[in-house]
Amino acid sequence: MRTLLLTPGPLTTSEATRSALGRDWGSRDPAFVALTTRLRQRLAAVVHGEATHEAVLLAGSGTFAIEAAIGTLVPRDGRLLVLANGAYGERMAAIARQIGRAHAVERWPETAPVDPDRVRTILREDPSITDVAIVQCETTTGLLNPIGSVSDIVATAGRRLLIDAMSGFGALPLDLRRIRASAVMASSNKCLEGVPGIAVVVAERQQLAQSAGQSHSLGLDLHAQWHGFAANGQWRFTPPVQVAAALDAALDQLDAEGGPAARLARYLRLHAMLTAGMARLGYRTTLPPALQAPIIVTFDEPGPEFDFARFYAALQADGIVIYPGKLTRAPSFRIGCIGAIDQHDIARALESIARITVWQGEPAGSP
Amino acid sequence: MRTLLLTPGPLTTSEATRSALGRDWGSRDPAFVALTTRLRQRLAAVVHGEATHEAVLLAGSGTFAIEAAIGTLVPRDGRLLVLANGAYGERMAAIARQIGRAHAVERWPETAPVDPDRVRTILREDPSITDVAIVQCETTTGLLNPIGSVSDIVATAGRRLLIDAMSGFGALPLDLRRIRASAVMASSNKCLEGVPGIAVVVAERQQLAQSAGQSHSLGLDLHAQWHGFAANGQWRFTPPVQVAAALDAALDQLDAEGGPAARLARYLRLHAMLTAGMARLGYRTTLPPALQAPIIVTFDEPGPEFDFARFYAALQADGIVIYPGKLTRAPSFRIGCIGAIDQHDIARALESIARITVWQGEPAGSP
Repeated sequence: MRTLLLTPGPLTTSEATRSALGRDWGSRDPAFVALTTRLRQRLAAVVHGEATHEAVLLAGSGTFAIEAAIGTLVPRDGRLLVLANGAYGERMAAIARQIGRAHAVERWPETAPVDPDRVRTILREDPSITDVAIVQCETTTGLLNPIGSVSDIVATAGRRLLIDAMSGFGALPLDLRRIRASAVMASSNKCLEGVPGIAVVVAERQQLAQSAGQSHSLGLDLHAQWHGFAANGQWRFTPPVQVAAALDAALDQLDAEGGPAARLARYLRLHAMLTAGMARLGYRTTLPPALQAPIIVTFDEPGPEFDFARFYAALQADGIVIYPGKLTRAPSFRIGCIGAIDQHDIARALESIARITVWQGEPAGSP
Repeated sequence: MRTLLLTPGPLTTSEATRSALGRDWGSRDPAFVALTTRLRQRLAAVVHGEATHEAVLLAGSGTFAIEAAIGTLVPRDGRLLVLANGAYGERMAAIARQIGRAHAVERWPETAPVDPDRVRTILREDPSITDVAIVQCETTTGLLNPIGSVSDIVATAGRRLLIDAMSGFGALPLDLRRIRASAVMASSNKCLEGVPGIAVVVAERQQLAQSAGQSHSLGLDLHAQWHGFAANGQWRFTPPVQVAAALDAALDQLDAEGGPAARLARYLRLHAMLTAGMARLGYRTTLPPALQAPIIVTFDEPGPEFDFARFYAALQADGIVIYPGKLTRAPSFRIGCIGAIDQHDIARALESIARITVWQGEPAGSP
């Protein structure tokens, strides 16, 4: 039976996406150059950035996109305000610290969204802040932050905004014609439903053009990477050619599905089915519905008798991979509802969970 | 017909390696953790570093391994001597420059190897140098540098050595029981015959342990990456799971072939066949045989009537991808002899080249 990855990624991919991995490509060959150009155009279009932004691709993990954007687009004498309500906000602060960019961190509890009013006040009171960074969907909990309101406030205050859209890019609404952002960071392997290995920054052309020589890194220099693509359509350094071909195939499927809005609709259906099914089995979601994005759901552990390691192992024996919790305040676990999955897959997961839940207190592993 | 990539990489891969791409993996699942641990052990063993070194893996291009090693292992108050006789030596100097590590560059012509005696003199005269960096096989030309002699001189002088072994790792001899190196940098997609997307640093355990907080980058911090693997066997950031599985399959094939010595023997046979066949067609190698590694061969363009763009396109129409020259001194082109290829593939390439050579002066593209 097919393995189901109900995690924040890597995710379950489609047969068509995985088939696209099965070919060799010369990375400087015209066919691959054309594929790269097409990928860059399509990725900018996912967030309607064609007119104003450039999609710059990097080999590697999504975190490289975050570090490349902060290191290249926040000026060396700038100061970054990081809005943090979970592990991925904290990671942006850790990046700023390690690469030596001045920064401040404004924190909210893991179960509360960023408060736009507080951001407005901070920007009014602290003129040293040049750039602001926010996570669209904080995977720590699956919480959705109000990027629309925050973007309006940051633009009105004349500052720049970096959006970590890693976990929602390709499904959650993000329209760069309305949301002012100097960069949106994403990855090949989440809602785009490709395989992991490519980091994406959709960066404002004007900001990129002003950022020569600003990066702390050669490999993660977005300006130089953009110049490389602009010069001859090629990646500066050997790209993961198979991963790129799979991402192109995954974008074909995003188009065929009807684009990000249709994909979001599917995820919303899966999310509703998952939380309703889990509620029937006695599992409560940690977040109130209004804050929950349909990407990954955090469930409270039902009580002290719940043994996550056994729960995980029993699900794994059924070919279903879920995710531990990342909350600091209470024991929890997470189940993703993204990837190339449908309602039959969620039904299958709920059946397994129902069976395992009945076993609680019994030795796991026997049928 | 199968595409032949006769380049410095990405290369032609085997059916078995590409098949290993076709599965989904949870990156924090025990099965993938076990695969990662196995990969790290096998990669250290390729260069006999099991007792003294640790293989640290990064998502991304091989260049990331070079930047991570320089940024993590050369102390912030150290000074790096880069030995350069081609583009990849120059790239190490560019990395040191961009990340702000003090450095000096000693240069040789692109067609001359690094001279160990000169290295000895420099180290004697300049006590500020703490680390030395050299490229084992300089892909600019395919030239082999004398890493054995240089390593002895650097060790005797009490300095550390970083070896860019990117293009030869898995085939060219490199034994860390005899060669003293704080780090050897490699990539998944060259002589290891995996697909691109993973960078490898085999780093001395003792040097890694002393390097906390030294990196200029969060994503490219080898110390933190090593700690991540040591803590729970997991990658700190989402790894390219399919690329890792393909590398594991590629290492099975390296074992089955008889290890790096047997792989080198195959490449030597292919290299001899290629250069002999090309000589019969009137193409001269740029380097004398004694300097040429059996990885990629630079050929002089035969004369002003030779049109590389047409030559490339005609070969491409036959499903064969070669590589432009990178020499600054004279027009040249390159043909690789590594990857999952055999003598039938070289014979096929030589037949195509023979046919295309006869056509010189004729319009390309017709049969």
